[in-house]
Amino acid sequence: MSPTPEERALEISQKYHGKIQVLPKVPIKGIDDFAALYTPGVAAVSKAIASNKDLSFELTYRWNVIAVVTDGTRVLGLGDIGPEAAMPVMEGKALLFKYLGGVDAVPLPIRTKDPDKIVETVKYLEPAFGGINLEDIESPKCFYVLEKLREIMEIPVWHDDQQGTAGATLAGLITALELTGRNPRDTRVLLFGAGAANIATARILNKFGIPYDNMIVTDSRGPLYRGRPDEEEMKVENPWKYELLKKTNKDNVSSTEKAFDGMDVVIAASKPGPGVIKPEWIKRMNKDPIVFALANPVPEIWPDEAKKAGAKIVATGRSDLPNQVNNSLIFPAVFRGALDVRAKTITDEMVIAAARELAAYVREKGASEDYIIPRMTEWEVYPRVAAAVGVTAVSQGVARIRKTFEELHESAKAMLERTRRTLASMEYI
Amino acid sequence: MSPTPEERALEISQKYHGKIQVLPKVPIKGIDDFAALYTPGVAAVSKAIASNKDLSFELTYRWNVIAVVTDGTRVLGLGDIGPEAAMPVMEGKALLFKYLGGVDAVPLPIRTKDPDKIVETVKYLEPAFGGINLEDIESPKCFYVLEKLREIMEIPVWHDDQQGTAGATLAGLITALELTGRNPRDTRVLLFGAGAANIATARILNKFGIPYDNMIVTDSRGPLYRGRPDEEEMKVENPWKYELLKKTNKDNVSSTEKAFDGMDVVIAASKPGPGVIKPEWIKRMNKDPIVFALANPVPEIWPDEAKKAGAKIVATGRSDLPNQVNNSLIFPAVFRGALDVRAKTITDEMVIAAARELAAYVREKGASEDYIIPRMTEWEVYPRVAAAVGVTAVSQGVARIRKTFEELHESAKAMLERTRRTLASMEYI
Repeated sequence: MSPTPEERALEISQKYHGKIQVLPKVPIKGIDDFAALYTPGVAAVSKAIASNKDLSFELTYRWNVIAVVTDGTRVLGLGDIGPEAAMPVMEGKALLFKYLGGVDAVPLPIRTKDPDKIVETVKYLEPAFGGINLEDIESPKCFYVLEKLREIMEIPVWHDDQQGTAGATLAGLITALELTGRNPRDTRVLLFGAGAANIATARILNKFGIPYDNMIVTDSRGPLYRGRPDEEEMKVENPWKYELLKKTNKDNVSSTEKAFDGMDVVIAASKPGPGVIKPEWIKRMNKDPIVFALANPVPEIWPDEAKKAGAKIVATGRSDLPNQVNNSLIFPAVFRGALDVRAKTITDEMVIAAARELAAYVREKGASEDYIIPRMTEWEVYPRVAAAVGVTAVSQGVARIRKTFEELHESAKAMLERTRRTLASMEYI
Repeated sequence: MSPTPEERALEISQKYHGKIQVLPKVPIKGIDDFAALYTPGVAAVSKAIASNKDLSFELTYRWNVIAVVTDGTRVLGLGDIGPEAAMPVMEGKALLFKYLGGVDAVPLPIRTKDPDKIVETVKYLEPAFGGINLEDIESPKCFYVLEKLREIMEIPVWHDDQQGTAGATLAGLITALELTGRNPRDTRVLLFGAGAANIATARILNKFGIPYDNMIVTDSRGPLYRGRPDEEEMKVENPWKYELLKKTNKDNVSSTEKAFDGMDVVIAASKPGPGVIKPEWIKRMNKDPIVFALANPVPEIWPDEAKKAGAKIVATGRSDLPNQVNNSLIFPAVFRGALDVRAKTITDEMVIAAARELAAYVREKGASEDYIIPRMTEWEVYPRVAAAVGVTAVSQGVARIRKTFEELHESAKAMLERTRRTLASMEYI
C-alpha cells in the first residue's frame, strides 16, 4: 500500500527538518565579495534608501517578500493548536507562494492572540516586507485584524481565508452562471455558513453585482434574519455577521429548509460533511441549481448526491473531484501582481479582476459543467491573473508604479519559469 | 579603474533587487506533492507538534532559522537612518550567516524605537525562530533590550555588536597575551570607548579572568571614575556604563593621557581615526603593549604609527590589514553551535569558548604578531568554533539535546560543505 499524505508529510518533515530555507539570490564567489555585499560597500545602498524610503522596494528583496502571519487559533480544521504547531502549514503555504507565484514568503507564527497586539506587531514589521498574508486566524477576530491593518499599512494585507476563498469562489461562480444562463443581478444565492470565507464572499459577490437582497446567509443556528433571538449579542460579538443580518434575507426567512426555496446558488463553507446539506434541500432550489460544497476534507454534500437531487453544477474543495475551488489559484498570482506594481493594498476590485481572469481562461479553453475553474496545473493562467490584478491596482491608483498588462504578464511568466528552473537545478539532501 | 565597494554594492542591488530569497529545501516534483507538503497531509505534522511543542525544532525549519532584528537606530557608522535603510545591511548579514554558518536568517527591520515595544515584538515572534540576532540598535538601549529578551525567551538572543565583538576581541587578545607572555590575572586593560562593544567586552574579559581592578574604561569625556561630574546622570541614563564606573579604575584616574600609564592592552572601539589615539599615549603603556584599534573604516590609530610608538601587536577591524578582529569569525559559528544543540540561550561562557577555539586554531597553525586571529578564509575553523560552543551549552545545561564535540564538528562541517555546494549549483540571473 502506498503511504497516505499524512504519512508522507511526517516522513518529509522528519527527513528534511522543515521545508524552506533562506538562500542568496546573488552569486558569492568568495569572502572578498562581502566588501560589496556587506561592509563597507553596503553603506552606499543604505544611504540611498535613507534619502528615499521607496527605494527599499528597488534595492532590497523587500519588493518580493511577504510575511505569512498566524496566531495559530484556527489552523486547518484543527482549531486553536497554537503558533508552533501552525508552522508546518505556514511553511507549506510559503512553498505554494514560491512555486506558483515566485513570491518569497516567510512564516511568522506569533505568540499572542490579542487582536490589537497582532495588529501592532504586524505594523512594526512593515519595513521588512512588501506584503502580509494573514492565515488561519479565528473568526470574527480575523475581520478586525484585517480591516485595521488595511487601514494603517502601506503594503498589501491579505487574509487568505477571507479574500482568497472569496476570489476562488467567485471565479467558479462566474463560469457556472454563464453555463446556466444566469446574470448576477437576478441570481439568488444562499451562503451556507457564516465564517471568514462566506462573510467575505458575500461582500465580494455584492461588489461583483449580486444584490444583498438576493442573498440569505445561514450559520449553525440557521438563517440570519432580523429579530433572531441572538441579534443583539451578534451585534456586539460579530458586527460583520450582524451587517449581513441587516442587509440580506429581505423576506426574513427563519428556517434553513426554507432558505433553499427559489435559490439559484448555494455556497457552503461550513463544516465537513457528508450529510450537512440534505438532498431534499437541493430539490427546493430553482431549476439547474449551482452547488458549491467547499468544506474540507469532505464536502457538505457529495457531488453525486447533489446531482441526483438536481444540481446542474457542483464544485468542492477537493483536488480529486472536478471543479476544485482552490485558493492556490488566487493568492500566489494576486500577490505576484500586487508586488509587481508595488501596490499599497489589495482592493476587492483586484480580487474580482483575478476571478474574472480565471473565468476568462476557462471560457477560452472551453468551459463545461465539469470545468468551471482552471486546474492548478494550468500554468499559463497564473501570470494572466497576476497581470489582471496589477493593472487593476494601477487603474485604481493604489500602485506605486505603472505597468501594462503585457509588461506584467511577461515579467510574471519569466519569473515563474525562472523559479521553476531554479528549483529543478537545486541539490537537495 | 575598478569600481569601489560602494559602486559595486549599488550595482548589485540594482541588478538583483536584493540579495536573499526564500526557497524550498525539499524537492517539489509537481502539484501532487502538495498533498503532503500542504493539506491534507500537513495536518499530521501540526498535530504532532501540538502534542509536543519542542517537536517544532525537529519537524519544521525553526531549528535552523533566526531573525536579524534591528530598529535602524545605529546602522554601521551611519547612525539612525531608519529600518528601511537598514535592510541592505541585514540582508548582507543574512548572507554571512548562511555562507559561514549554514544558518537561515530572516532580516526583520522593525518600525519602533521604543525598547519595550522591541522586546514585546521579538517575544511574540519566538515560535517562528530558533534564535534572535539583534543588530545595529543604539546604546544604551541595546543593553536593556538584550537583557530583557534573554530573561524572557527560551531561544538564544544575541546582540552582535555586544557579544560578537567581545568574542572576536577576546579571541585575538588570548593569542596576543600568549605571544607577549602575559597572564590574564596580571594584565591591565584600557577599554577606550564605552559603547555596546566595549561594555560587553569588559564583562567578557572579566569572566575570562582579567580583574575589573585591572581595567580602566573611557568614554568621550575621558576615563570613568568615581566622582566624575556626570556620575548621577550616568546612573540613570546608562546603568551598564555606571556599573563599570564603580567596578573599574581603582585608582580613580581622571585624565585620558594618564589612563594609558602602565597599561598592557588598549582596546579601542570608539570613533573612526586616525588621530583618535595619539602615539605619545601608546608610549606611556607597559613594554610590548597590545593595541586593538577597532573603529571602522579607519582605526583610531594606524598600525604603523602605533608600532612606531612601541606597540608590539596591533589589531584592527580592517580586512586589508593583518589581525582583523571580525565578528564574522564568531556569530555564524556561535549560532551554528547553539542551534545544533537547540540551546535556550547563549551564555558568556559559550562566547568565551568560541574565542578560545579561535585562539587554539591560531596556536596550532603557528601564531605570530601578524597572525593572532584566524582569517575569514580559514574554513576549517568555523565547525570547530560551532562544536566548542555547542559542548559548552551542553555542559552548562542550557541545551535541549546532548551532543559531543565530534558529533557537532562533523555535522557543522557537513552542513557548511553542503551549503557551499548548494550555492555553487544555483542558477542566478
